[in-house]
Amino acid sequence: MGKRISIMGATGSIGTSTLDVIRFANAEAPGSFTIEALTAGADVKSLSAQAIAFGAKVAVIADETKLAELRDLLSDTEIECAGGTTAIVEAATRPCDLLVAAIVGSAGLASTLAAIGKGTDVAIANKESIVCAGHIIKREAEKTGAAILPVDSEHNAIFQVLQSRDSLEGLTITASGGPFLNWTREEMRVATPKQAAAHPNWDMGIKNSIDSATLMNKALEFIEAAILFDMPTDAIDVLVHPQSIIHGMAHYRDGSVLAQLSAPDMKCPISYALGWPDRLETEVARLDLKQLRELTFFEVEEAKFPAIRLAKEAVKLGFGGTTILNCANEAAVSAFVEGKCGFLDISRVVEDALSSFASGNLIAMACDTLDEIAYLDHHGRELAQEIIQHAPSRAEG
Amino acid sequence: MGKRISIMGATGSIGTSTLDVIRFANAEAPGSFTIEALTAGADVKSLSAQAIAFGAKVAVIADETKLAELRDLLSDTEIECAGGTTAIVEAATRPCDLLVAAIVGSAGLASTLAAIGKGTDVAIANKESIVCAGHIIKREAEKTGAAILPVDSEHNAIFQVLQSRDSLEGLTITASGGPFLNWTREEMRVATPKQAAAHPNWDMGIKNSIDSATLMNKALEFIEAAILFDMPTDAIDVLVHPQSIIHGMAHYRDGSVLAQLSAPDMKCPISYALGWPDRLETEVARLDLKQLRELTFFEVEEAKFPAIRLAKEAVKLGFGGTTILNCANEAAVSAFVEGKCGFLDISRVVEDALSSFASGNLIAMACDTLDEIAYLDHHGRELAQEIIQHAPSRAEG
Repeated sequence: MGKRISIMGATGSIGTSTLDVIRFANAEAPGSFTIEALTAGADVKSLSAQAIAFGAKVAVIADETKLAELRDLLSDTEIECAGGTTAIVEAATRPCDLLVAAIVGSAGLASTLAAIGKGTDVAIANKESIVCAGHIIKREAEKTGAAILPVDSEHNAIFQVLQSRDSLEGLTITASGGPFLNWTREEMRVATPKQAAAHPNWDMGIKNSIDSATLMNKALEFIEAAILFDMPTDAIDVLVHPQSIIHGMAHYRDGSVLAQLSAPDMKCPISYALGWPDRLETEVARLDLKQLRELTFFEVEEAKFPAIRLAKEAVKLGFGGTTILNCANEAAVSAFVEGKCGFLDISRVVEDALSSFASGNLIAMACDTLDEIAYLDHHGRELAQEIIQHAPSRAEG
Repeated sequence: MGKRISIMGATGSIGTSTLDVIRFANAEAPGSFTIEALTAGADVKSLSAQAIAFGAKVAVIADETKLAELRDLLSDTEIECAGGTTAIVEAATRPCDLLVAAIVGSAGLASTLAAIGKGTDVAIANKESIVCAGHIIKREAEKTGAAILPVDSEHNAIFQVLQSRDSLEGLTITASGGPFLNWTREEMRVATPKQAAAHPNWDMGIKNSIDSATLMNKALEFIEAAILFDMPTDAIDVLVHPQSIIHGMAHYRDGSVLAQLSAPDMKCPISYALGWPDRLETEVARLDLKQLRELTFFEVEEAKFPAIRLAKEAVKLGFGGTTILNCANEAAVSAFVEGKCGFLDISRVVEDALSSFASGNLIAMACDTLDEIAYLDHHGRELAQEIIQHAPSRAEG
């Protein structure tokens, strides 16, 4: 009997890589994995093709208006069909051995929590769930015994080399530095969404790519590391490492640092989560340091990339702060993509939203329930919109 | 109750570093370690000072002519004294929690095996024991349940990141490249012992330093890795890495590579062996990749450094071959230090001795007992002497 897997967000970048890993593993050792549920936002064509190819039990489309089309596409099969966000949460509660939480943005939170509530191990590729509701997720996982396996390459790396928590002194996550690593602030000011989305090493979606250009991606990962591994922010370091070979490191009190290295390919951390506690054979390109010849490391230039500083400030404000950082950033990235603000405005909007939250312009709350987080998320987005509309060009000055 | 430690070869470089680690650990957490036995070759002054400072139960000097002096120096204490190689082996059999095997050269083998025979965990810093008698040591350890903890920084690194043996694809050990990394073969031909002993990163004895210049040190470690981790030679890679920060790596079948990094300080692997399975707090300098800025990696230039190729050939010949490589090298290094041959002759002598052994000029034997290994070691040295005397300048031509 293989492992039964459900994938929330199957048609996105992580979802399709997950299915690639499973296809390869099943070719090597037939029956290693079976698919329980696959879900997607609106892309019924890809979803139905995946469901057929992998013999899924159920396929769910978030956009209910596409349900009829999905039924059509799957009419010759025995695959169950469903539509709407409630159906996605229901799919997440179906018994399986591992749920891959790969829905982008805060939309993925409910299904992740639903699975953990059932005691299902979850491979979390959705950093926003941890950033906004990591405490709820961890509390629930502790209650049900579900394992939380990080899929972000940095956290997955640390997870692989995490031995004794007692002797851990610190963590390092690395950053490629994104497409603007060597740009000046003046050049970044007039950067276009297309330029920002051109990531040098990793293949990822548009939101993640722009987050990578601002280093807001790394800021979210910094927060994720602090929450997942329960480390104080001053014990976590972000290192610019343009080659993206060392993904994360754990520093121990004897002076030893353990690191995970690999080619920059998400199939590597995904396969680790799928195979855990074993390791699967993969088709990931093998590392050849002789050919790479050098690995380089730099400090983050804070003047050009304020994101990491903002992450530390957000963590100080608690889950209210990290939720605000996340939703203000989502709003600002959308505005940037739509041409409503400049590239440097993204960090500025996040900074202003955090300041506004810190000074009490939004109801402070414990953020102890998903409703409270959703409320804050909603008002944080409104706040960000206001900041964008009323002071669109402060960063231009 | 702390851990009881015995140190064979306490006054050498590894021995004194071990006592440094213990001093620091006991200052942090009093009583963490107590000393059972300390042994030395001939340096009674250092030995007696150590025995007094650490409250050893017994101090043993290999050179029996120094026993009276040792008794004198320890006359005001209750520390037992003994002299001679048999007394050293006896000291190794005294009950303790961990024996640190730090005697240099094949002289350390008998005491290591004696401790393992008693089921005592052994931290092995003596690579010659593994190279010549690794099969006997491992067989004995399997019988008694003694753990073998490698202290060489490369093997200790691999030991730290060794997870599932099943999914292991390969190992990498790194080499600083030694003092002659950027020398031409012509320059190496006329190198002096003093130049060869000037190691850039590590502080080690003269024999080890010259081995580091020829890369014969790395050849011995290559053999040690093959034996300790039971890996085929073509799955082990040697990488020149001048900064000596990454010490060893384990390559897994999912494309992940786990590595141990640290400042080049033997206190790091020693502390890991002493604390295992926990980690001790140490005063080892913490790694700062931001300050180092780059790590570089190169292939070993085989034309300049034939040692790794010779290691592979020796492993093919079995423990007879690895014993010949080791003793021919010891003989050639002595000859080089005494001005009896040139630097490049060291590898040439080893190569000729291996060829001679392979073509049956020494009695082939199973090398299944210490006596057989000692016999081969003895005749291997004679063979090496002959090669040095009768063809002293072939490498000069």
